[in-house]
Amino acid sequence: MNVTVSGKTRHYRTVTFDGRANCVQLIEQRLLPHEFKIVSTPDFRATAAAIRDMIVRGAGAIGATAAYGLAQGARAFRGKNPDAFAKHVEVVLEAIKAARPTAVDPVNAMLQVRTHMQAGTSVEEQQALALAAAEEFAHEDAAQCHAIGQHGARLIRAGAKVLTHCNAGWLAFVDVGSATAPMYAAHAAGRKFHVFCDETRPRSQGATLTAWELAQQGISHQVIADNAAGLLFSRNEIDLVIVGSDRTLGRTGEVANKIGTYTKAVLAKRHGVPFYVAIPLLTIDWEMRSGRSIPIEERDGSEVLGAWGVIMDPKAKATRARPARRAYVRVANPTSLAFNPGFDVTPPELITGIITPAGIFKPGELWKRRGVLGGPR
Amino acid sequence: MNVTVSGKTRHYRTVTFDGRANCVQLIEQRLLPHEFKIVSTPDFRATAAAIRDMIVRGAGAIGATAAYGLAQGARAFRGKNPDAFAKHVEVVLEAIKAARPTAVDPVNAMLQVRTHMQAGTSVEEQQALALAAAEEFAHEDAAQCHAIGQHGARLIRAGAKVLTHCNAGWLAFVDVGSATAPMYAAHAAGRKFHVFCDETRPRSQGATLTAWELAQQGISHQVIADNAAGLLFSRNEIDLVIVGSDRTLGRTGEVANKIGTYTKAVLAKRHGVPFYVAIPLLTIDWEMRSGRSIPIEERDGSEVLGAWGVIMDPKAKATRARPARRAYVRVANPTSLAFNPGFDVTPPELITGIITPAGIFKPGELWKRRGVLGGPR
Repeated sequence: MNVTVSGKTRHYRTVTFDGRANCVQLIEQRLLPHEFKIVSTPDFRATAAAIRDMIVRGAGAIGATAAYGLAQGARAFRGKNPDAFAKHVEVVLEAIKAARPTAVDPVNAMLQVRTHMQAGTSVEEQQALALAAAEEFAHEDAAQCHAIGQHGARLIRAGAKVLTHCNAGWLAFVDVGSATAPMYAAHAAGRKFHVFCDETRPRSQGATLTAWELAQQGISHQVIADNAAGLLFSRNEIDLVIVGSDRTLGRTGEVANKIGTYTKAVLAKRHGVPFYVAIPLLTIDWEMRSGRSIPIEERDGSEVLGAWGVIMDPKAKATRARPARRAYVRVANPTSLAFNPGFDVTPPELITGIITPAGIFKPGELWKRRGVLGGPR
Repeated sequence: MNVTVSGKTRHYRTVTFDGRANCVQLIEQRLLPHEFKIVSTPDFRATAAAIRDMIVRGAGAIGATAAYGLAQGARAFRGKNPDAFAKHVEVVLEAIKAARPTAVDPVNAMLQVRTHMQAGTSVEEQQALALAAAEEFAHEDAAQCHAIGQHGARLIRAGAKVLTHCNAGWLAFVDVGSATAPMYAAHAAGRKFHVFCDETRPRSQGATLTAWELAQQGISHQVIADNAAGLLFSRNEIDLVIVGSDRTLGRTGEVANKIGTYTKAVLAKRHGVPFYVAIPLLTIDWEMRSGRSIPIEERDGSEVLGAWGVIMDPKAKATRARPARRAYVRVANPTSLAFNPGFDVTPPELITGIITPAGIFKPGELWKRRGVLGGPR
């Protein structure tokens, strides 16, 4: 997507690869929305650290980073012995896997790259195939998100008011994002509409990342407290909800997504507002048979008990100064504890449609349509 | 309620009056939950400033503060001329009224005090009556909250899990609060239960004030993001919701309360969980005929775009050091704006019961029961 920094507009992907320098290039997401910076990881260990330290986050984005990281590590090997090379590749894979041990995307991406490269015979050939496979992985992620945008754009009519939750934007993928893809496509088609971004406590990805993305594209939007959507629904000021998903069950149509998604689906149902979930194909879990089996991560209470931000005058509309370092403020009573679940599960009866790269389907149709959705035979 | 500071436990009301020094004594609520401090306002202008600057907030608490402030101002008058005295009282009343021009509670409280004092003939007699009327106002507020507690306590069974939103606690009244009164009464009766406090963005009154109140009383509780209640409801981990109200329509049973209340009522209905609203009688609006007429204040966007707190290490479980000054951190994208409504309206079909000082009623029964609820004939 285009990003404008100091008046200059350039196109960026969240993750790219510099083949000549053998570097992965990443948007330093921990500095957003207060500062935009590209970092280069000079070797695979630095790439693993970037995943571990959340310089890059989001399913598609960490998948592509891991794919490039494996290629980067493979290409750094000096020598012609295929056995030594294979051992080296294992070391790289394990190092990147260990960076985010519970995430499935980096592992899937790297296994895909390794399978492709094993078609080569010489070390040199395998090194070339690794990079080609990593590029293909990133390309496929971007292509699926673009397809989601094409299918979903028709849902956003001129003048529509759209609610979204958390960040299922291009920063979470390689390009255009999932829930945001229909917005970018409708915007590119010249339609004017307005987006309400749930701030998405406790980590505030809506207020920080989604609001930054929409501001960069010049899409009309406002940040709202997660509490405010109910009032907007009751005033008929929301026409459409689009969210992403961390895991969608192909057998049941249940959708696990950022905590608070279920609440918005319940409100949308009560007010007769269409509720859509936008997902690339890798998000579909074809094995699990019940949403009750989806593990719900409990995160550190400090996220709920306080907030991260940049110290500034609350009356200032915007800061142009290079910001001071981020600070954590404790908001809550200091002797109280928190309960901090990361996700909730939305049942299929609250979901109008699932926007996939292959088209828009009812949640109950996924299993029947598994042939076009990359599911099992 | 009891407050423990540096190991010493003492009983406090939110607002009291020191007759000898002619001072209003207030809990400095802007320092909570990080510091507990009582401030004395030496004259009525300082009392007005305390209301204006939100040292004291909450309907009952600012009503009592205004009542005491009027008595304080009247008692500071030196002379025996009733006309000059009456003029002086007008000046006091206008000064305190101007401190929070849209709030109805200070005005109602002061008119009540002025009516009582006008029964006196001499300046001295009127001064004495003013203080007696202010004390009566505060006593009545506390008595109504205690009665709410007695009626509501039976709703909280041993082992119950209770959800509350915002702060309808004793800090918002003179003592025990409205939504919290049943909790304090059940706790005093020896029952063990657990409270989930919605943090209540954007001003976080649940995380700051309600959590502090419950911690002071030793009531088991956890702060949750406003987004997290949906998951708790879907896991059957909430047995009961109790909230307060800023305005309840006596003719329709509609309830205006802090933004986000409506969402919790919708969730409670879906999951078959009882949803109660606790209110003292002054909260009932007997005139308004539709919830659509309730003005919804739009507050400054900076509240949504950032957070106020005390800078500290996020991993620290508690701070015992005297905290540094509070700081505002901008969380959101600095070029984005916010929509920040202060209240929403919950329709009667989502409300199980209204807990009043005169008993628990269905929202549709208020008008029929207006005789015992202080309504019109």
